[in-house]
Amino acid sequence: MAVCSVSIVPVGTGSTSVSAYVARCHEILAEVEGIKYRLTPMATVIEGDLEIVLSTILRLHSVPFEKGAMRVLTTIMIDDRRDRELTMDGKISSVEEKLGG
Amino acid sequence: MAVCSVSIVPVGTGSTSVSAYVARCHEILAEVEGIKYRLTPMATVIEGDLEIVLSTILRLHSVPFEKGAMRVLTTIMIDDRRDRELTMDGKISSVEEKLGG
Amino acid sequence: MAVCSVSIVPVGTGSTSVSAYVARCHEILAEVEGIKYRLTPMATVIEGDLEIVLSTILRLHSVPFEKGAMRVLTTIMIDDRRDRELTMDGKISSVEEKLGG
Amino acid sequence: MAVCSVSIVPVGTGSTSVSAYVARCHEILAEVEGIKYRLTPMATVIEGDLEIVLSTILRLHSVPFEKGAMRVLTTIMIDDRRDRELTMDGKISSVEEKLGG
Repeated sequence: MAVCSVSIVPVGTGSTSVSAYVARCHEILAEVEGIKYRLTPMATVIEGDLEIVLSTILRLHSVPFEKGAMRVLTTIMIDDRRDRELTMDGKISSVEEKLGG
Repeated sequence: MAVCSVSIVPVGTGSTSVSAYVARCHEILAEVEGIKYRLTPMATVIEGDLEIVLSTILRLHSVPFEKGAMRVLTTIMIDDRRDRELTMDGKISSVEEKLGG
Repeated sequence: MAVCSVSIVPVGTGSTSVSAYVARCHEILAEVEGIKYRLTPMATVIEGDLEIVLSTILRLHSVPFEKGAMRVLTTIMIDDRRDRELTMDGKISSVEEKLGG
Repeated sequence: MAVCSVSIVPVGTGSTSVSAYVARCHEILAEVEGIKYRLTPMATVIEGDLEIVLSTILRLHSVPFEKGAMRVLTTIMIDDRRDRELTMDGKISSVEEKLGG
C-alpha cells in the first residue's frame, strides 16, 4: 500500500480555472475499487496498491485531453513504506499525536 | 495571496519516520501571523502572501537540520492566481460545487 | 510520446548519499527499449511512450527497496503534448533558439 | 550551497508553448551574481546560496505575470546537504563514477 498525490494541469486551454477537470477526475476515482482518495487544496491524495494507483493516475491524466486540452502536466508524489502499513489517516494522526502530546 | 504546498524530507537519518519533523514544523507555523495552513497526508498546504509563505518555508526547511539531519529535500508547489482571490477553501469548494451539481 | 522526470529518494537508510541508487537505476534504463533518458543534477529525464515510461519508473522505484531501504519517496513530472512531437532535445532547442535570436 | 530545480508554468494563456517564458527566465538568471544554472528538459537547475536561489526563483515566478498570464504554477525542489559541498557537477559525476567503475 502506498500513499500518492497527483496534480494534473492543462496548459494552453485559455482558462485559468481547472476545477472542472478535477471534478471529472473525482467522478472517475469514485468508480475505482480498492483505493481511497481525498481532495486537498493542492493535489488529490490516493491510497492503495501502487500499481492500481498509478494506472488510475494514468486514466486521470487523460481527462484534460478528453476535454480538448493539447498539453497536460501531471505531478505525482509516491510515498511507499514497507516496514509498517502506510495510510492517509495514519500519516495525519501520527503528526497530530506528537502535536497533542 | 498564493496557495502553496510543502514537503520536507530528511535524507540519511536512519529512521523511516518523519512525523516528528512535521510536528515541529506545525508548531512553528502556529506562530506565524498572516497565513493559514493545513496538514494533508502528503504535504502541508499554506495560504498567504507569497513572500511571507516562502520565508516561512525556508524556516521550516531548517527544522530537520536543527534535529541533526545532514541532508534535506524540500518540494514546494506554488499556485498563484491574480484574476481572482485564491484560497484553500475556495479551491476545494469550487470542485465540490461541480461534483454536487 | 511524453517527457518525464523522476527523482527517487530512500528515507531512513542512514546515509546521505543516493548516487549508488541512481547509478543502479541508470543500469536498468540502459536495458529498456524504446526510451531515451538523461541524467540531470536533480532528476533523471525519460522520453518515450507514456505507459512504457511509467512502467519503467515503477521498476526504478523498487531499486532502493532491493538495496534494503524500507521507505521510498518518488516524484514524477509528466509533460505530455499532443499538438506536436515532444522530445527532450526539442524542448531544449526551443528555448535556446529564443535566447540566441 | 544548495542545488534546486524550478519549473514555472502559466495556466490559461491560450498557448501550449512555454519556451518564451523559459527564455526570459534565463535572461534574468544570466544577470544574477553568485549562482550557477543549467537548462534541462523538465526544469531549470540552480546552484548557490539557498536564500539567493529562492529570491531569484521568486523573481522568475513573476515572469509569466509580466507577459500577461493570470495564473502561474511553480514547482521547486531543494536539495540541501551540509555534510559536504553539493554542486550540480558533483552530483552528476558522483553517479557517473559509479556507472563507469
